[in-house]
Amino acid sequence: MLLKVKSLGLLAGRPVAILHLKTARKLNVHIDERIEIRSKSGRIISVVDTVKGLLKEDEIVLSEEIIRYLKLRQGKYVEVNAAGEARSAPYIREKIKGLELSREKIRAIISDIVSNKLTESEIAYFVAAEYINRMSMQEISYLINSIVNTGKRLGIRDGIIADKHSIGGVAGNRTTPIVVSICSAAGLTIPKTSSRAITSAAGTADVIETIARVEFSVDEIKKIVKKVNACLVWGGALGLAPADDKIIQVERLLSLDPEAQLLASILSKKISAGSKHVIIDIPCGKSAKFTFEEGRALGKKFSTLGKKFGLKIKTIVTNGSEPIGNGIGPILEMLDVISVLKQDKARPLDLEKKSLLLATKLLELTGKAKKGRSLKIASRLLKSGAAWNKFKEIIKSQKGDVNKKLSPAKYSRDIKAKRNGKIIEINNKKINAIARAAGCPSDPDAGLYLFMHCKSKVKKNDTILIIYSKTLEKLRYAKKLFNRLNPIMID
Amino acid sequence: MLLKVKSLGLLAGRPVAILHLKTARKLNVHIDERIEIRSKSGRIISVVDTVKGLLKEDEIVLSEEIIRYLKLRQGKYVEVNAAGEARSAPYIREKIKGLELSREKIRAIISDIVSNKLTESEIAYFVAAEYINRMSMQEISYLINSIVNTGKRLGIRDGIIADKHSIGGVAGNRTTPIVVSICSAAGLTIPKTSSRAITSAAGTADVIETIARVEFSVDEIKKIVKKVNACLVWGGALGLAPADDKIIQVERLLSLDPEAQLLASILSKKISAGSKHVIIDIPCGKSAKFTFEEGRALGKKFSTLGKKFGLKIKTIVTNGSEPIGNGIGPILEMLDVISVLKQDKARPLDLEKKSLLLATKLLELTGKAKKGRSLKIASRLLKSGAAWNKFKEIIKSQKGDVNKKLSPAKYSRDIKAKRNGKIIEINNKKINAIARAAGCPSDPDAGLYLFMHCKSKVKKNDTILIIYSKTLEKLRYAKKLFNRLNPIMID
Repeated sequence: MLLKVKSLGLLAGRPVAILHLKTARKLNVHIDERIEIRSKSGRIISVVDTVKGLLKEDEIVLSEEIIRYLKLRQGKYVEVNAAGEARSAPYIREKIKGLELSREKIRAIISDIVSNKLTESEIAYFVAAEYINRMSMQEISYLINSIVNTGKRLGIRDGIIADKHSIGGVAGNRTTPIVVSICSAAGLTIPKTSSRAITSAAGTADVIETIARVEFSVDEIKKIVKKVNACLVWGGALGLAPADDKIIQVERLLSLDPEAQLLASILSKKISAGSKHVIIDIPCGKSAKFTFEEGRALGKKFSTLGKKFGLKIKTIVTNGSEPIGNGIGPILEMLDVISVLKQDKARPLDLEKKSLLLATKLLELTGKAKKGRSLKIASRLLKSGAAWNKFKEIIKSQKGDVNKKLSPAKYSRDIKAKRNGKIIEINNKKINAIARAAGCPSDPDAGLYLFMHCKSKVKKNDTILIIYSKTLEKLRYAKKLFNRLNPIMID
Repeated sequence: MLLKVKSLGLLAGRPVAILHLKTARKLNVHIDERIEIRSKSGRIISVVDTVKGLLKEDEIVLSEEIIRYLKLRQGKYVEVNAAGEARSAPYIREKIKGLELSREKIRAIISDIVSNKLTESEIAYFVAAEYINRMSMQEISYLINSIVNTGKRLGIRDGIIADKHSIGGVAGNRTTPIVVSICSAAGLTIPKTSSRAITSAAGTADVIETIARVEFSVDEIKKIVKKVNACLVWGGALGLAPADDKIIQVERLLSLDPEAQLLASILSKKISAGSKHVIIDIPCGKSAKFTFEEGRALGKKFSTLGKKFGLKIKTIVTNGSEPIGNGIGPILEMLDVISVLKQDKARPLDLEKKSLLLATKLLELTGKAKKGRSLKIASRLLKSGAAWNKFKEIIKSQKGDVNKKLSPAKYSRDIKAKRNGKIIEINNKKINAIARAAGCPSDPDAGLYLFMHCKSKVKKNDTILIIYSKTLEKLRYAKKLFNRLNPIMID
């Protein structure tokens, strides 16, 4: 049936089509069933909502996601038909039943995800099956292949292309800008794409955005990297791994992160970006994502899969049992990063130490430095100001300004020790939750500033941390959550 | 934030709220995140879509599902706030991780489903976890309890209240109207609620609807049952088990049917309807839902759970390896039912035999007849016309007419045997798919008429079946699917 497109500027995060109730009846589709919408530019599957008013019978309201995808405009015509079950739905069912999937079946699932032929609920079924029934290394490599093949490539080929990645789960821990600055100062090419916060207080992209732009097109990124041999951009809208981006949207709903998808997500993005040498930081320990045993097992899988795809991978199991750095939140973390790069006296030494470790390992992996010499080289690049200069170049090429005045949010509250003792635990998940309650990441100046780390001795009434918020309401909420969660244990 | 309700008559099958982009930003919610909407009548969680035009910043478009639930009208104000993760989301995560859930956790999940606090994708996670990690009998009984407690009760208490249920999966197999007519003629009270077709060609409700109304309120059903001690109505909108209705909507997407949910779904509805004696038909065999071994194991679980809830249950494992009756599709099946009840010469004897078996077992279970006598009693009620008279009473009380002229659809196509031989297989799933391609269940006069069953001898060019369709296009499509699926094997 030919229907006329009506645009309302509707954004739904997924394809949505609204039909007149009578039109839906004619097409023999019911609400929540699928239709296929075709234009000259392609086809897309959408679930159907129906409406009694608002629309004429020969019209269809399409969400902006569909309008962009099919290159439509108000008043254009599309061909609309009832659509049956997606081609790959039986394969998801097979995975739920515990069967191993072939290359073709995994390819079909990923391709249906990218072309919007599966609903979010069907993707949730796939994620649950990956999680509970696990996937073999063979299946994971098919998954990586399919994700890469349905995405764009960054297409950077000059120089020694390297990257670093952290599995996350540790509050603060903003090593990326420091490692990238040191290693690109050493001559490596690092086209670093990062994410925004999903469940944490800040992602690297949120932190960089406090002083520079992070959203660029693939071509712009290529120019930046050509000029300064590194970048610190947001990877979200580049389409390097669109299937993975959609799967992550569904994983978020229940904070699930199946190992197969974690491996595929990270490796597919490195392959699409053209990286050949990759350091992966796997923080382990209490309140981190993994135990040390799990972390080592995961590391082995990264290496095995890396080999299959011609990547040199070095995984490093690090201590992730407490936050790293002092600031938690976009601006507070950027202040930490700058103070390390500028070698301020009051810089957070735990953050510096970890960044140097990762930079050292990356210099070794790429052959830029030999084992006994690498730490010296990395430290010299940091001390001499070479890394700081490189950071300034990167920020400038991303239309930013390292001298931008950055201040924590207006309202603050000191949290004091209730007794004398030694700090024995600072829980990452709880710290993240409190920083989010304070307004992170949407208020970039909100967050926490930690004065203490594990093993610090404290006296009663010493300030342990400060909470910053844009409004008194959020400050109160964060304080209340702090009291309820009690993230810091003193013994 | 207070927002003014705008109604567009939007039906989405789930709660949908559309905010102006700027309003969403103020609330700090992004598309696909949750908001809580409150009126004097209650609160509901909805995912957010945003729009640039259409709306003023102080307005909110709500889907009809929400407007009804919160008893709103155009122009009324609602309180809207960002909402975090649902209370029961961590419990779903626990079930995905393989843990056993407590009574309180299952209750929280079911209550969040009923009050729309979980998205369809989160329900999909729960269904997948039920399917893959299975549930213990203890968990299933908590599930039944929670589903019953969040639904309405039919509240019929007079007489011996009995019911029959078939697990489905067999094409045709329209025993329910016949069993209900025989047994209520014998004096049992049978408040039978049935479903519409989900993946099959017709549900009992679709079949009854060809000659009578099937949608009634709880009060109307009580009146009907009081008058004629039985009914044959649609259970879908009664709210006897609203949690289960929503879960089924999600199961449909991938045609998944976890055993735990199957048990809970059937038993909760029987408990809510007040039935005390229930016969459950479990069709087994090739192209049925279960093997005979699985069917027997399932039967035991029904009995064990039934005891916990004070139900007398008798499960009967039947041969479900081929369609039962001649007609497949609402009108064609109703013609079969009427011909059995009227004892026409050309009635389908397989359907009659199975109906008598089930009726016999129900008469025995309720103590209405003793073992050696029950088949005789049931047969007599059928032969004497008592069952037919009871059926007429039921249909009349449901504003129907047993004399309504019923004809198969206008366009038809004979399918002939390609060679001499004996029919060795008629595949239920394929037959259902072909009947649906022909237009079932939305075209009630579409479907198949089978002249043969397994073990029938055929000669080349004998007509095996006829396909009926409302349009030539659907007829051609069904014929094409018939050729592709080849549902009938001749040896």
